[in-house]
Amino acid sequence: MADVTIPRIGIIGAGLCSKEIMEMAEEVGRLVAQRGAMVYCGGLGGVMEAAAKGAVEEGGITVGILPGSKATDANPYIKIPVVTAMSHARNVILVRSSQVLIAISGSHGTLSEIALALKMWKPVVGLNTWEGIPDVHYVSTPKQAVDKAFELL
Amino acid sequence: MADVTIPRIGIIGAGLCSKEIMEMAEEVGRLVAQRGAMVYCGGLGGVMEAAAKGAVEEGGITVGILPGSKATDANPYIKIPVVTAMSHARNVILVRSSQVLIAISGSHGTLSEIALALKMWKPVVGLNTWEGIPDVHYVSTPKQAVDKAFELL
Amino acid sequence: MADVTIPRIGIIGAGLCSKEIMEMAEEVGRLVAQRGAMVYCGGLGGVMEAAAKGAVEEGGITVGILPGSKATDANPYIKIPVVTAMSHARNVILVRSSQVLIAISGSHGTLSEIALALKMWKPVVGLNTWEGIPDVHYVSTPKQAVDKAFELL
Amino acid sequence: MADVTIPRIGIIGAGLCSKEIMEMAEEVGRLVAQRGAMVYCGGLGGVMEAAAKGAVEEGGITVGILPGSKATDANPYIKIPVVTAMSHARNVILVRSSQVLIAISGSHGTLSEIALALKMWKPVVGLNTWEGIPDVHYVSTPKQAVDKAFELL
Repeated sequence: MADVTIPRIGIIGAGLCSKEIMEMAEEVGRLVAQRGAMVYCGGLGGVMEAAAKGAVEEGGITVGILPGSKATDANPYIKIPVVTAMSHARNVILVRSSQVLIAISGSHGTLSEIALALKMWKPVVGLNTWEGIPDVHYVSTPKQAVDKAFELL
Repeated sequence: MADVTIPRIGIIGAGLCSKEIMEMAEEVGRLVAQRGAMVYCGGLGGVMEAAAKGAVEEGGITVGILPGSKATDANPYIKIPVVTAMSHARNVILVRSSQVLIAISGSHGTLSEIALALKMWKPVVGLNTWEGIPDVHYVSTPKQAVDKAFELL
Repeated sequence: MADVTIPRIGIIGAGLCSKEIMEMAEEVGRLVAQRGAMVYCGGLGGVMEAAAKGAVEEGGITVGILPGSKATDANPYIKIPVVTAMSHARNVILVRSSQVLIAISGSHGTLSEIALALKMWKPVVGLNTWEGIPDVHYVSTPKQAVDKAFELL
Repeated sequence: MADVTIPRIGIIGAGLCSKEIMEMAEEVGRLVAQRGAMVYCGGLGGVMEAAAKGAVEEGGITVGILPGSKATDANPYIKIPVVTAMSHARNVILVRSSQVLIAISGSHGTLSEIALALKMWKPVVGLNTWEGIPDVHYVSTPKQAVDKAFELL
C-alpha cells in the first residue's frame, strides 16, 4: 500500500468571482498549506487561482487538474499540472483525487463537483456556495472551512 | 456536417427507486420513442431501466452509457451499449451526447448530471427531482416532461 | 444480465486515406452489416466514414464515439453519435465497447487502439495496417477480415 | 500563461518486469530528478515504481496518474497521486501531461502510450522497448535516455 501521507484537499469554486471571494479562497489556500496539506484544484482562474496563490506563498504544493489540452492553461501558482483534455470530466478526477473538498462560491461546475463528491462519499465543506444541499458542512469563514476539512480527513 | 437527424433525449435519475417513479420513467421513455427520439441513459437500473423499457416497447432506440467495464452490465432494454469503464465520468459523456435532459427523481449522481447539463447550456426538464435549481424546467407529469423536452430541442 | 445480443464490431483506421483503402473499409462495413453486427467507430472521416457508409447502405446500425464536443462532428453515416469531448481518450471507450476490432490502414491513433485492444484481451483483425504486432490476426481482404472477426466473436 | 517551469518527463513501461529492467528504470528516475525534472508515471509497480523510487531518493517530485479508484493503489514512491478511476484512459492523461516520454520495456499498455504520444506530437525515447516504431528515439542506456529526453524538451 502506498505511503500516501500528505493530505489532499480539493478546493473548488467559481472561475470568475469577486475580489471578496478571491480573498476568501486565498486565505483558505494559505491555511491549508500552513497545516501541511496539498491543494488540488481545477487549475484555472478565480477561486482556483486564488487558492493556489495562497498555498504557494506558504510553500505549499498545488496540483491543477486541467480541462484543456495544454499545461500552459494553468494559472501561475500551479506547481503540478495534470493535463486531461477531457473538459468537464476533469471534475470527476479532481473530486476522486481529493480526500475532502472545500467549495467556495461557484456556479454549475462547482455544483457538479459537490454532487460528485457526495456521490463518492467524500466530505464537502461549503463556504458561500450552493445552499441547502444535505450533507454539505456549511461554514462561515476560511478558518472554519479549513478546520472542518482537517477534522473530516 | 453530419446528418444527425434523430433527436437524442437523455433520461437521468435514480438507479434505485419506487414503483411509482419507475412507472413515470417508463411512460417518459414510451412517449419519447413514440415521438421519434432516441433515449440516451446511464444503462443501469431504476429510472434508466424503466425509461429504456418504455422506449424499446415502442420500437425506440436506447443507448446506455455504462460506467463499468462490461456491456453485460446494461439493463435488458439497452440496444446500444457504450462501455466507458470511467465510473462517474460517464455522466459527462451522457450529458454531452444528449440534446436535452429529463431528470426524474434521483440522488447525487443525478444532481451532478443536472449541474453538468446546465454548465454545458443543455436544457434540463425536472420531474420529481432536485428542487429549486435555477434554469431547470420543472413539470408535473411524464407527458409534460416530454412535451417540454421536444419544445426545447 | 443484459440481453445484449447484437454483436459489436469496432472498425478502426486512418482518418485520411487513399481511395483504395476507403473502398476496403466500405466493403468491410457492408459485410459487417449484412451479417447482422453493429459498426462501432470513431465517427470521423476516412476509414471511419467509409465503413459507416457501407454499413448504413445495408441498413446497419453505426455508432460513432466522437473525440470532440459536438454531435455534428460525426460523418453523415453515423446513426448513433456519442459525444465524449475527451479527445484521444475516446479511443479507449471505442475499444472497450467493441467485442472485436478490425484495423484497416491507420497511423499512430490506430496503433494506440490496436494496443489498447490487445491490452484488454479483445481480438484484433489487421488489414493493410501496422505490421508485425504479435496476436493481431492479419488478413488480406475485406471478406477475410469480416469472416475472421465473426469467428472471433 | 502559467509559470510552469519544472519539466515534466513521463516514464512508461511494464508493470511487471525483471530486476535488470527495474534497475534501468530506477537509474532513469534518479537522473531525471538530479537534472531537475518531475517524473510523471502510471503510479503502479514495475518500471513505474522503480522510476519513482529513483526520483524520490534524489529528492524529486513524482506524480502517479492512477487507473483505479484509490490513492492507496499508488506505489510508495508517489508523492502526488492523481486518482482517475478511468482504467486505461489514464494513459492518455499521462501522455498529455508529459512533455517528453521515456519508454522502458513494456507490453501492450506501453505500446498504447508510445502511439498516443506520437499521435500528440510528443517526443518518445525508447530503451529496451517495442522496436521499429518510426519516430521513436532509440537509446541503449539510462544516461542516454535522460540526455535525449532533456535534449527533446
